[in-house]
Amino acid sequence: MGKKSCPLSRVYGLLEPGPVVLITTASKGRTNIMTQSWHMMMEFEPPLLAAIVSGRNYSFDLLKASRECVINIPTLELAQAVVDCGNTSGRTVDKFEALRLTPVAAKCVAAPLIKECYASIECRVTDTRMVNQYNLFILEAVKAWRDPAQKNPRTLHHRGNGAFMIAGETVKLPSKMK
Amino acid sequence: MGKKSCPLSRVYGLLEPGPVVLITTASKGRTNIMTQSWHMMMEFEPPLLAAIVSGRNYSFDLLKASRECVINIPTLELAQAVVDCGNTSGRTVDKFEALRLTPVAAKCVAAPLIKECYASIECRVTDTRMVNQYNLFILEAVKAWRDPAQKNPRTLHHRGNGAFMIAGETVKLPSKMK
Repeated sequence: MGKKSCPLSRVYGLLEPGPVVLITTASKGRTNIMTQSWHMMMEFEPPLLAAIVSGRNYSFDLLKASRECVINIPTLELAQAVVDCGNTSGRTVDKFEALRLTPVAAKCVAAPLIKECYASIECRVTDTRMVNQYNLFILEAVKAWRDPAQKNPRTLHHRGNGAFMIAGETVKLPSKMK
Repeated sequence: MGKKSCPLSRVYGLLEPGPVVLITTASKGRTNIMTQSWHMMMEFEPPLLAAIVSGRNYSFDLLKASRECVINIPTLELAQAVVDCGNTSGRTVDKFEALRLTPVAAKCVAAPLIKECYASIECRVTDTRMVNQYNLFILEAVKAWRDPAQKNPRTLHHRGNGAFMIAGETVKLPSKMK
């Protein structure tokens, strides 16, 4: 069948979902940006999402305190910023300045949108019961933005160890799937 | 900034993670296959995953009863089967037969691998506390398989309404990211 056993430590590389997102947070005058790949949709409407934010990340503190964030979706042009963002900590660095990204005021939350990202989703934390055990936050999207000119955004999908799959072409199949 | 407001009902199309997976389940002599996109990694090792399986799906019953499943990852060649699988119910159809897919015995769980998928992850349900409210199952990967010949698998990523992004090229960037 061609399939060989694969170390469990590499499972994340198979399922690494992407698109890689940049999560912005703000609390008490501080903002931060975090590179993140572990998120999923949970419900269509109102849109519920799950996101894993580790307690080791500075963003964890800001997210827990403010209960708000923005999920910004970058494309290939921002690949280096995505990696650099993942390799530095907001505890010691102003990431907007260091990564030359532009904060834009959101409509419903205090955390800023990132201007250079093709889409941004403003979110409120609605359930923290799984945070202590799993670092899992349940979020409700309350406002979403996207650049309509970008029909086929070249999003980045982390395959592990700095390897990113770039979104390719799109095919349309007759489907009843939502 | 180019970004326009986007209906909340389309948020899932922005974050639709992929790769689309085919989840196999087995209980009391019945097997089933489900097309699914709402999954994410939660922990590296042991690998923990979250997956949303709606109570409307026949697979929900099999997963809840058996507490085991296999997450199989298809590529472009299986696109039609992925869509057809999502448009039929295992309550009335033997999906392996209808979709001409080949079940292969798994090593650690009763649910079968799908031979035609380039990777398969055997999973056990470890936490069902979020099932009633969110249809959210927490899974531990206990065995993983992949075809090492497929270095750049053309996985499918559902953008909504039958539109699938096909995994494109891979770039490698110097990174400390795991």
